[in-house]
Amino acid sequence: MSLASRILDGELRAAARLMRNLDDGFRSAVDDMKELYPHTGRAFILGITGPPGAGKSTLVDQLTAAYREQGKRVGVVAIDPTSPFTGGAILGDRIRMNRHADDPGVFIRSLATRGHMGGLSRATADVVNVMDAMGMEVVIIETVGVGQDEIDIVRLAHTTVVVSVPGLGDDIQAIKAGVLEIGDVFVVNKADRDGADRTARELAVMLEMKKTAPGDWLPKVMMTEASRNRGIAELVDEIALHRSWLADSGTLERIRQERSVRHFEELLRERLFAEVFGHIRVNGRYREIVEAMASGRTDPYRAVDTVISERFGTPCQES
Amino acid sequence: MSLASRILDGELRAAARLMRNLDDGFRSAVDDMKELYPHTGRAFILGITGPPGAGKSTLVDQLTAAYREQGKRVGVVAIDPTSPFTGGAILGDRIRMNRHADDPGVFIRSLATRGHMGGLSRATADVVNVMDAMGMEVVIIETVGVGQDEIDIVRLAHTTVVVSVPGLGDDIQAIKAGVLEIGDVFVVNKADRDGADRTARELAVMLEMKKTAPGDWLPKVMMTEASRNRGIAELVDEIALHRSWLADSGTLERIRQERSVRHFEELLRERLFAEVFGHIRVNGRYREIVEAMASGRTDPYRAVDTVISERFGTPCQES
Repeated sequence: MSLASRILDGELRAAARLMRNLDDGFRSAVDDMKELYPHTGRAFILGITGPPGAGKSTLVDQLTAAYREQGKRVGVVAIDPTSPFTGGAILGDRIRMNRHADDPGVFIRSLATRGHMGGLSRATADVVNVMDAMGMEVVIIETVGVGQDEIDIVRLAHTTVVVSVPGLGDDIQAIKAGVLEIGDVFVVNKADRDGADRTARELAVMLEMKKTAPGDWLPKVMMTEASRNRGIAELVDEIALHRSWLADSGTLERIRQERSVRHFEELLRERLFAEVFGHIRVNGRYREIVEAMASGRTDPYRAVDTVISERFGTPCQES
Repeated sequence: MSLASRILDGELRAAARLMRNLDDGFRSAVDDMKELYPHTGRAFILGITGPPGAGKSTLVDQLTAAYREQGKRVGVVAIDPTSPFTGGAILGDRIRMNRHADDPGVFIRSLATRGHMGGLSRATADVVNVMDAMGMEVVIIETVGVGQDEIDIVRLAHTTVVVSVPGLGDDIQAIKAGVLEIGDVFVVNKADRDGADRTARELAVMLEMKKTAPGDWLPKVMMTEASRNRGIAELVDEIALHRSWLADSGTLERIRQERSVRHFEELLRERLFAEVFGHIRVNGRYREIVEAMASGRTDPYRAVDTVISERFGTPCQES
């Protein structure tokens, strides 16, 4: 019985196993994903992003509790900064959301920011698809920071919540500008802190400067104190409003299609490299190139030319 | 006359032009890079990283001034968070380091975190190589944040300075742990702020817990107030000490070789994708796949299988 079948039968351990297989680049994992794919497309995917220290984990914990109260199964993909030393996620699954640890309706997966063949965005898309296929009705993706990866990942989401917090440094303003366009809902967390109202006002002003067309979604700025569960119900309502707008405006279907295309491109990039890299490792070409670069007989640019022409240069029959 | 020759002749505008060509994926840029490559390997590459709000830009500005006083030419590659809306860097070259704007001994290039074919790390490596070939004796790479990209980029550097700042949130501790192993020198900037001593002590304690072997470099924690130019001379001295250690311990040569190998792999990944993606765009296969995915007749996993088998499945002559 395939892992995919066992996942569709509700076996949580099979899902964890497939996610490890995907990480390890097992070829069988691709077959499992093909089997699961027809069962995806039902989950609502919620992205939570913002700078370090904004309290995103606590917010995700509270949102998870809120969706559980609605009777929904919840998957959480937490993108953790990686320790370059251990190679693992710094926070990890275990210290996250202890209160949901024994709830079979919550499935948590931490993805370290390093070591994903083909990129973190591809790895996250795979994990979201597995959670979707296993029947998680809400999948929350939590990312720390606002780098290229984070923005790509957040674009996997249907609704993106950008979390801010009062009293961070000047650079934060620049980052706010960067995420202004990706946020569907803005949250000022730790709203009891000095400066919370000012942060909210500044965000609102920046949002008002955005050009909009009739029918566009107009993002609101919400206030929360996640650690005291304040403002969470209102946030859940606002997210639900955005979800309705997505469906009514046809945006949901467009997001789904864009996500497929991007996922295809990322998988293609990864598989092409894996094929050719595996090839030159096995036939000894890689070792020759590394030695030639060390001794200065070639350089990265020339070496790539050589490999490409060896692989594609000889006329190959087109199918 | 090639752009590369003009760069080697000292023409700054030719360097800027090549960097744009690299960004745009021009094939001629690869030829220029091949021509420049033998002239690289002389620059000292300094990485500056840390969380948003730590004052990295000011620190880079002061370090630039200090190296200029030593008579050294300085290149700065600033990795800026990107506006997903405009696609451009948020901070940009122009508002950076105005006081160095008219100094021909300083060459500044901002790289946006988005839109680099083959990844930001590859794009940064290319820009560093151009600056190296054009005779910049110090190349400073400044990154915001600590995502996967940032860590990869920082690994391009010979010496990495991790900038911290007192009084950020709890998540910062986790991130500190993540960058602990990549830092050769640690700086607590804004050292006049409350809690600076505590932050420095915490860092020192974490550093002491690292396992070390005899002959290893032992990172120090330095205090700076970059905005008042305090602690900069001491930081420059400490960086120079690390540079000497790199040379004496043979680490410099190992870093150079590792960088070539990684650059080769990144260029290969990019070129393979560009070749095959270009191929399926031109022959109409891409459009067919996008439509088949939209209508549910295929999925990303199956579509990649198809493309791979079409490209590699038919036995192709090995050279």
